[in-house]
Amino acid sequence: MASNSFGDIFRITSFGESHGSGIGVVIDGIPAGISIDVTLIQQRLDERKPGSSGLVSPRKEDDKFQFLSGIFEEKSTGAPMTIWIPNTNQKPEDYNALQQVFRPSHADFTYHHKYGNRDHRGGGRASARITAAWVAAGAVAECLLKHTHIEVLSYVKQLFTHQIPENLSLDQLKQIQNPLYCPHPETALLMQQAIEQAVVEKDSIGGIVATQIFNCPIGLGEPVFGKFQAKIGQAIFSLNAVKGLQFGGGFNMSSKKGSEVNDEWILSGSSFQTKTNNSGGLQGGISNGMPINFDVAFKPTATIGKPQQTINTEGESTILQAKGRHDPCVVPRAVPIVRALTWLVLADLWLLAKINN
Amino acid sequence: MASNSFGDIFRITSFGESHGSGIGVVIDGIPAGISIDVTLIQQRLDERKPGSSGLVSPRKEDDKFQFLSGIFEEKSTGAPMTIWIPNTNQKPEDYNALQQVFRPSHADFTYHHKYGNRDHRGGGRASARITAAWVAAGAVAECLLKHTHIEVLSYVKQLFTHQIPENLSLDQLKQIQNPLYCPHPETALLMQQAIEQAVVEKDSIGGIVATQIFNCPIGLGEPVFGKFQAKIGQAIFSLNAVKGLQFGGGFNMSSKKGSEVNDEWILSGSSFQTKTNNSGGLQGGISNGMPINFDVAFKPTATIGKPQQTINTEGESTILQAKGRHDPCVVPRAVPIVRALTWLVLADLWLLAKINN
Amino acid sequence: MASNSFGDIFRITSFGESHGSGIGVVIDGIPAGISIDVTLIQQRLDERKPGSSGLVSPRKEDDKFQFLSGIFEEKSTGAPMTIWIPNTNQKPEDYNALQQVFRPSHADFTYHHKYGNRDHRGGGRASARITAAWVAAGAVAECLLKHTHIEVLSYVKQLFTHQIPENLSLDQLKQIQNPLYCPHPETALLMQQAIEQAVVEKDSIGGIVATQIFNCPIGLGEPVFGKFQAKIGQAIFSLNAVKGLQFGGGFNMSSKKGSEVNDEWILSGSSFQTKTNNSGGLQGGISNGMPINFDVAFKPTATIGKPQQTINTEGESTILQAKGRHDPCVVPRAVPIVRALTWLVLADLWLLAKINN
Amino acid sequence: MASNSFGDIFRITSFGESHGSGIGVVIDGIPAGISIDVTLIQQRLDERKPGSSGLVSPRKEDDKFQFLSGIFEEKSTGAPMTIWIPNTNQKPEDYNALQQVFRPSHADFTYHHKYGNRDHRGGGRASARITAAWVAAGAVAECLLKHTHIEVLSYVKQLFTHQIPENLSLDQLKQIQNPLYCPHPETALLMQQAIEQAVVEKDSIGGIVATQIFNCPIGLGEPVFGKFQAKIGQAIFSLNAVKGLQFGGGFNMSSKKGSEVNDEWILSGSSFQTKTNNSGGLQGGISNGMPINFDVAFKPTATIGKPQQTINTEGESTILQAKGRHDPCVVPRAVPIVRALTWLVLADLWLLAKINN
Repeated sequence: MASNSFGDIFRITSFGESHGSGIGVVIDGIPAGISIDVTLIQQRLDERKPGSSGLVSPRKEDDKFQFLSGIFEEKSTGAPMTIWIPNTNQKPEDYNALQQVFRPSHADFTYHHKYGNRDHRGGGRASARITAAWVAAGAVAECLLKHTHIEVLSYVKQLFTHQIPENLSLDQLKQIQNPLYCPHPETALLMQQAIEQAVVEKDSIGGIVATQIFNCPIGLGEPVFGKFQAKIGQAIFSLNAVKGLQFGGGFNMSSKKGSEVNDEWILSGSSFQTKTNNSGGLQGGISNGMPINFDVAFKPTATIGKPQQTINTEGESTILQAKGRHDPCVVPRAVPIVRALTWLVLADLWLLAKINN
Repeated sequence: MASNSFGDIFRITSFGESHGSGIGVVIDGIPAGISIDVTLIQQRLDERKPGSSGLVSPRKEDDKFQFLSGIFEEKSTGAPMTIWIPNTNQKPEDYNALQQVFRPSHADFTYHHKYGNRDHRGGGRASARITAAWVAAGAVAECLLKHTHIEVLSYVKQLFTHQIPENLSLDQLKQIQNPLYCPHPETALLMQQAIEQAVVEKDSIGGIVATQIFNCPIGLGEPVFGKFQAKIGQAIFSLNAVKGLQFGGGFNMSSKKGSEVNDEWILSGSSFQTKTNNSGGLQGGISNGMPINFDVAFKPTATIGKPQQTINTEGESTILQAKGRHDPCVVPRAVPIVRALTWLVLADLWLLAKINN
Repeated sequence: MASNSFGDIFRITSFGESHGSGIGVVIDGIPAGISIDVTLIQQRLDERKPGSSGLVSPRKEDDKFQFLSGIFEEKSTGAPMTIWIPNTNQKPEDYNALQQVFRPSHADFTYHHKYGNRDHRGGGRASARITAAWVAAGAVAECLLKHTHIEVLSYVKQLFTHQIPENLSLDQLKQIQNPLYCPHPETALLMQQAIEQAVVEKDSIGGIVATQIFNCPIGLGEPVFGKFQAKIGQAIFSLNAVKGLQFGGGFNMSSKKGSEVNDEWILSGSSFQTKTNNSGGLQGGISNGMPINFDVAFKPTATIGKPQQTINTEGESTILQAKGRHDPCVVPRAVPIVRALTWLVLADLWLLAKINN
Repeated sequence: MASNSFGDIFRITSFGESHGSGIGVVIDGIPAGISIDVTLIQQRLDERKPGSSGLVSPRKEDDKFQFLSGIFEEKSTGAPMTIWIPNTNQKPEDYNALQQVFRPSHADFTYHHKYGNRDHRGGGRASARITAAWVAAGAVAECLLKHTHIEVLSYVKQLFTHQIPENLSLDQLKQIQNPLYCPHPETALLMQQAIEQAVVEKDSIGGIVATQIFNCPIGLGEPVFGKFQAKIGQAIFSLNAVKGLQFGGGFNMSSKKGSEVNDEWILSGSSFQTKTNNSGGLQGGISNGMPINFDVAFKPTATIGKPQQTINTEGESTILQAKGRHDPCVVPRAVPIVRALTWLVLADLWLLAKINN
């Protein structure tokens, strides 16, 4: 099935494999004449790339991108824009040992069963490497919406058992720093130690990425199956290792009363605001002008160095002790990806909203 | 934007309003010759309908459906099947008072802003009433998949602060009973008291609906943007009042180590199983043969009888004290809807999987 | 496969069967607040309906429509609009004799083979009856575009061997009259005689419907696979009995030189025009401001009273002599359908064009 | 608008420009494990490429393709397959003179109006160069269907005023030869002289490409808007310079009686055949087992060397006398493109048909 495209109007088609010659994306539906900020695209790719921190995967990829189509004199032409990121650091040999076993909590078994192959060379399409192209596409969406002053802020809110305080100010949130994308320095330190500990233990850890969207115009999101959160839902659950998603007050609202969590409308001058924002900026699937916010839960990386029980392709029980390179924690690297997916949804909904005007 | 359709192959198009003449659904893509169990469809509708318990909304709807097309001698013909459920109990006058104020945490404001109308007659398209037709469509999907022996079990796992125990057996889970769809009688009693208390307080409460899918064949779900969880994500977040969704170990996995939550493969006879199921039956977006499970978090109903601060369409601050009929708790009624959406996703993915064989 | 929808933004989903309880259409993607001219919709339906002329099918259908959803106080609400046309004059018994034989040049054999049924009750989904709902949807598209002053003129250009003269003025073309929708009275008379002759001979005849679109804004049509003519192509070839489609100079241009048929640009005041219009108003798939025109070729009705050789469902050779009611010539009735499909394409492309502004 | 994709299941996304770095296509929805015949793909590209005959455009393109993704050890992996064809022979300077005038019967004016640019470097997306990637994709579709024994035969049936005889045998039709793709040598000679004459006159000529599909299984094509001819219609009218399309008896059937053109069913042994094939192998939009056939009318190439009146971007009348390289006749080169589009439709419909089994 053709399942590699996302979006209705601003529509990306993802292609490429982690250990093929590269990965790419076709972006169809960009209006003509949009200034494309090449530096921004590279910056976003750099923010995602492995090996940038010493904390994460030792795989070094340059992630230098090139346009194959759709741009002329740094402006979109209205034609589909294709971005290509060559793979420069494939080491398929690292994976040879893996090709005969089904790694626990990996896509090996299901791909093998569904396709009769699993492109053992590093996970193929199931690899998070393909998201580099999504990040580039997200930066193009960012260029499209630059004049709207929409801001998207994503950051690590929790890593392993370490959570940032709840009451951080917007100013503090904006102090998000590399390499952990955590806006609270004290918690970031604990997170870093947790990652280092995971490296020592040949283990991995999970975490939560929070996203806040500021200055989103009222009216983005389409009724019923095109709701803002439905599109975010499809996008975010397309990302590897995601096990949960919540908007506004989220799971906590399940144990609350309406009178505790309803967002009452108040006037701020002549503009409408809600006293609280448990709705997460979305009502009836449509943005209401308040900040939109959601959390994404990531499980720990499936690949760990510790020995694990599994089965090989011959159907025999065996013990797997992964070598190769792998992240002990994908959560910080997921931050630019979650943000990019958010921009893609925003661009699509923003173009859709023009139809009703 | 045309956002009222869902599914690629088994595709529903939803139409109708809560206070118009009725609600309906066109189901396109059903193979010909499928036996349609009319009794099952009505049973599923009855399970969802308001007023069935005394605990929930006093609106009484018969929810008697009729086929407008696509069926002949109780079999699908391959033509689009249309199901129509007339509204029998509209009382628009109940809502007249509401048409001038924006109800907190409701879709009033966003619809008003986006469409310049909000069809005050009961919420229009934003009403949960339209899900009755989804439930009917879900029952058709159930008919399509009857021979596969897939089972979908949805139930209330938490209501307000009351949670069922974690270690219920499958037999216990199957004891789900009306009217609360809670498989644990002792907890159900507490839940019922919580709803009664909310009625007294003119307040509302939230909860969590859990779903388990048994006997799902290996291989359902398409890579990348067609992942099983991405489709469930789009479907579930299309449902009103949903604020969270998690699969398998969910948000809890964020604070875990890989070695704690990885699902090791073991042999059970000649068949493959995982020791644990923190993946929730899905790896790489594709079913792995283990039970698929996910939780859906619902916020408390937005409409409450308690006075709330808000703004009217003139832009003046005002106090809203809702009358009309409304549920103090939508969670039990959401159970058949979540289950129906699950069947719709299963039918679509099951048909898609035939292409690769 | 879900193949009963057409359009990207202004999207219709067709349902219903000729001999079921009725036929209908869901129109999704209509902006809110559009004035819906109920009288116009009924007028368009009346123009299509059988039995209006004495020349065509004696089946009498009232074709009274009703809205099931999407309209409030004669305006679109932004919700999907559903139009339902009950069947009032089913006579399935007429068709009983047919259910055991495969009618020449009909869809019987292919439907039977593909679906294992063929809903012998009048052709089911293969019946032209379902186009009544398309006509209603086309009238809604007409309402959406009323303010644009786009005009769509469809008429019978050729019937059997009788063709209207080539050099009719616009004023003459606008004199299209019922029942033949032929703008040239002298030719219309010959056409009428040809139909009467076909009735006598228990035979049928074909013809050509021409369409001209005036005042179409420049810029409708999307590059590559969304070209104006590609969308018309999909729409028109979805219509029964259509065997050919040509734009502008059409098939005749195949035997011409570029210098004979190129459309040179000239100034008319400050506006751009082409001296000739062999391009049919479309260049690169996009409207260029000149009238858009195309011809649709219809084969003679497949059902005739003359005896024909065929095969029955037992695989035996047999002779078929159709009774029942049937048109000796569908061409005049096709005029309102071709026009409606044209409006549907225009509405979709017009909404799409808003995205690029 | 995202209009660069075609197909529901076997879905191509076209990208690239004639005078950018290259052109390409992403093919999504190919089942895994299909043997990809690299030699066949190159052969199909060679059949299309300009400069192969001395008769056509002197632009020399190598049209050497490479895979960017989706293939491993000469088999499809189930991942999207991307084919990239670098441009090797861009001469943008040839086109500099053109960038200020609107070429008659070209897409210059409409693109300029719609996009505010027209990528004067050779037509950009409006160039037929992008079809090279479609040809490669069509060859992949051919690989997918190899085991079905479906055969697609496309050839030049008419060029300028020269038509091949009507009664050619299948054996004769299969004698299609380069460079004119005309199966009748005597007519081919006349065609060649016509092209040579057009070169001398700095003019261009049109023609008709016929296609016949043999061994197509019964049952391909989906009802209503997914009819075989509707999909061919969308595909074929996406191709530049196409002004007409007809199936089976086509436009000629408009002046016939039903009794003359109905296709009576007869038995050939135990298999069903029709005596005649005026339906062109399609009934109700679904293949009936007879050869499918259709004709595509091409207008003469718009670019000619003769002086033509036109307007420049300043809005002044001017005379255009094109230099640069251009085909006096695109019709022979269109043959491999029409054939490729046919394979793409076949692959999509063939995969869709699996769903109903």
